Order: sequence, then C-alpha cells, then structure tokens
Amino acid sequence: MNNDAIGVFDSGIGGLTAVKELNQLLPNENIIYFGDTARVPYGSRSRETVMKYAQEDIAFLRQHKIKMIIAACGTVSSVVGTGKPVKDMPFTGVILPAAKAACGATRNKKIGVIGTPATIRSGSYAKAIKAIDPKIQVIGNPCPLLVHLVENGYTQRDNKITILAAEEYLAPIKAEGVDTLILGCTHYPVIKDIIGDIMGEGVKLISSGAEAARYAYNCLLEQDMFSDREEKGSNTFYVSDSTELFKENAKSFLGHTVEGDVFSCSLGD
Amino acid sequence: MNNDAIGVFDSGIGGLTAVKELNQLLPNENIIYFGDTARVPYGSRSRETVMKYAQEDIAFLRQHKIKMIIAACGTVSSVVGTGKPVKDMPFTGVILPAAKAACGATRNKKIGVIGTPATIRSGSYAKAIKAIDPKIQVIGNPCPLLVHLVENGYTQRDNKITILAAEEYLAPIKAEGVDTLILGCTHYPVIKDIIGDIMGEGVKLISSGAEAARYAYNCLLEQDMFSDREEKGSNTFYVSDSTELFKENAKSFLGHTVEGDVFSCSLGD
Repeated sequence: MNNDAIGVFDSGIGGLTAVKELNQLLPNENIIYFGDTARVPYGSRSRETVMKYAQEDIAFLRQHKIKMIIAACGTVSSVVGTGKPVKDMPFTGVILPAAKAACGATRNKKIGVIGTPATIRSGSYAKAIKAIDPKIQVIGNPCPLLVHLVENGYTQRDNKITILAAEEYLAPIKAEGVDTLILGCTHYPVIKDIIGDIMGEGVKLISSGAEAARYAYNCLLEQDMFSDREEKGSNTFYVSDSTELFKENAKSFLGHTVEGDVFSCSLGD
Repeated sequence: MNNDAIGVFDSGIGGLTAVKELNQLLPNENIIYFGDTARVPYGSRSRETVMKYAQEDIAFLRQHKIKMIIAACGTVSSVVGTGKPVKDMPFTGVILPAAKAACGATRNKKIGVIGTPATIRSGSYAKAIKAIDPKIQVIGNPCPLLVHLVENGYTQRDNKITILAAEEYLAPIKAEGVDTLILGCTHYPVIKDIIGDIMGEGVKLISSGAEAARYAYNCLLEQDMFSDREEKGSNTFYVSDSTELFKENAKSFLGHTVEGDVFSCSLGD
C-alpha cells in the first residue's frame, strides 16, 4: 500500500489522455501532472534536446511525493527507448504498453503507427512490436502537423484542414491494409473520429496514453502499491507556461473543465 | 564607424528573412544570429514567457561584440511593444518598421495584419499604425497554424493544406477590401506566393523582417555606425537545438544552403 501520488508528464496537454484513463481506473489515486507548455512541442526537436527536457521534467516531478512516473509523451518515450531514466520507482513510457495492446489486437499482423517526426525517426514502436512478434509488419508515418492542429483546436470531426492533413498522413498506411493503428502521440485521441473515419470501421485504434495508464494500473497492482484512500483522489496540474492558456486548451481537449488545481512553475528555478 | 556585428534573434528560423535583406543592403557587415529553435514557437505562449525568453536571447547576443540588436520576431516585438529592452545600443523590433512601410503603401487607408495569436492579441501593429495615422483602419487576424506549416516545409505554391488554412485566415481581411497586408510574422514571406494568390494583385504585401532590416540600415547610417570593412561580412548562426535540423530547415527557407558557420548553444549555461 502506498498513498503517494502518481506522477505524469508530457510536453504539453497530450498527457491528459493518460490522466483521464487513470482517473477512471484508479479514482482514489492522487495524480501530479506536469505539462511543459512553455517548450511544447518536443516532436520536432533533436534527440539530445528531448532527452534534456525529459530529465528536467522528471526532476520536477521528483520534488513531489510520488510513487511512479508515467512519461505520457510519445516523443519522450521514443527517445528514452528501453532505457530506464528512473530506477528507484516504477516508470513507464507509452511505447511498450501501446505496442503490447496493438500486438494483441492485430489479426492480419499489419500494424500502422503515426507519431511525431522524432517518434517515427526513432523506430521505437517498430522495435517494441518486433520484439514481441517478429512476423508483424509495421508501417509508420510521421505526422508533424497533427500535434499543432490539436493544440490549436482544429479538432471538429468535419474540420477540412485536419481531414486533409490526416488523409495525407494515413494514405500510405491505409494502402498497406493494416487492421490496427497506434496513435503514437498522446494528442491524437482527440481527433480519433477523424482518424477512424479515414481508416474505416475494420481498423482498431490504440490510444498510447490510455494504454500507458492501464499498464501503470497493472504495475501498481503487481507491486501492491495502490492507495488505501477511500475518498476520491485529487488531480494537481503544473505547467511551465500560463495556467489560463492550459485551462483553455485542456477544456477543449478533455471536453470539460479541468478538475483540480493548476499551478504555473518554471523549470530550472 | 563601427566594425562590431549586427545581432539578430528570432524564436526560430523566421528571422532569416531579416538576415537575407541585411546581407543585400549591407554586404560588408558581420551578422550574429540567434534562433531559439529548442523553444520555437513563441507565438502561442503567454506574454510573461515570451518576455523571459526574449531577455535570455538578448543576453546571449550580448556575449558577442555587437553594435545593434534586431528582434526579428513578430511575437517578441509585439510583447516588447514600445518598451526598450536594450538601452546602450540601437534596437529595433519588426512592428514599427513594418507599420511605417504599410502606412506609406496604403492608398485606401485599410491595412490588414496577420501574425501569431500573441502578436494579434497584443494589438501592437494596430497601435503603431494608429499612432502614425489615426484614420487608417486595421484588420488583424491570428494565424496559429501558418508558422507550423512553414517550419514543416508546407510551402509549395500549390500545397492544398496551406492554401486552405491561408484562405480561412485571410477571408475576413480580404472581405474588408484592404490594399496592404502586413506579414506580421517573419515566417510568412516564405509563403508569400500563396498569400498573394489569395489576396490578389492589387494588394501590397509588407515583409516585417525585410522592413526591420531596412530600418536597421537607416539607423546605422544616421548614427554613422557602418563598418568600413572592404571584404564581404560573415554570417554566424547560433541555435538552441540541433545545427543539422536548422541547416535543413534554413535551406528550404532561404532557397539555398546557409552561408556561414552554425553552432549549437544552450541558454542558461
């Protein structure tokens, strides 16, 4: 039993997909979230810069009483790879959980992956999938614009610009006849209707943020680290840019107002 | 006479539009450029964060022998406003130079302005134009996606996504019948063909980066601060993210390979 919080971080608001899932699976747990909104997006930056930012994000979360860390960011998870940036408590990125879920879901052994340029360049999903089943074919495509479209609210199902961009990114994946698609950036579930419309009903969409939350659930279960709190747990959010901008964006992201305190913080102070 | 370099900074690669113009106007001057590519874009961040970043960028340039600073970034220039973040040497942003050029160009006294959300929110262009001629009508519209489209190479004249986004952003400005349009973010000249196609031949486009360079020329001329160097001046570029990514992006931005050394640096070190 452990009543410390679960620490979650992301480059921005995408990691809220993991928080949403955690709140449903583990309603009595406290969550501490850090969104590096002053430096989002990570996905178009170099490996070295992403690694430096991730270390600073982890150091920030460590200032609080936490029992586990979730890197709810596809780019960070890809750059970290199979490395363990945290050794004294459970840690997970989104790659392995999403890869496992996709391998379990595919029947024709063809999995598509969409993510930021840094994520796709790293080949992280393909490596994780091949390690589980070398016979599975993985078709990845970088989608540099999607994170910006989501961050800027271009998320309505009939948004022409987002549909056009998504069609372009998904065409080569669809052409290969995949039956499973990993949404390898935690921003993408917000536009899953658009992605689903393009891919068609037969294709199973895997949300990497939600899978990471399920993985964290199992991890805490196995290690007997659930909280014994009987009341509802709290969500506390820290962001490196303005709290107002975060609340505004998070609202359109979650579909409802943020529940929990939101504080602004400055890394490196 | 002064042989120190001209310092130019931007959130990323947009400021290269000013460097390009400076190289043409003042071929014998040395240029020191800083692009904060690890933290681009500035335009969707809060006022406080943009100001903090701008101060760090200026402090970085001051580590070199410079005689003038150009903030070749619409967002920084807007947040600085009429303030003087540098007092011991000439300083200019892009707002006043672009506003002056637009006021000189308009005949029907209707000027359009496109920029990042932070730039448009600040009302900086409208204030600068009204101070010159209160009768001029200013129609501004924020274009959150354009900087990302340019940074990611969606710049071909027939790019459907960029055309669709630009049409959406320009529609309310075009409807007002402006005869002059300020490209209030230094990234936009890269897609000026697309913007020009939409606005039509009768509308004069003002490049804020190029106008800032012309303003700097006049400023150095008036203060007798030109270099007496007879050979060609050098360009030296510093970026906060990878030099490779910068070279790649700058190439598509400039239309040719970057001429000059490119170094990576870390702010705050």
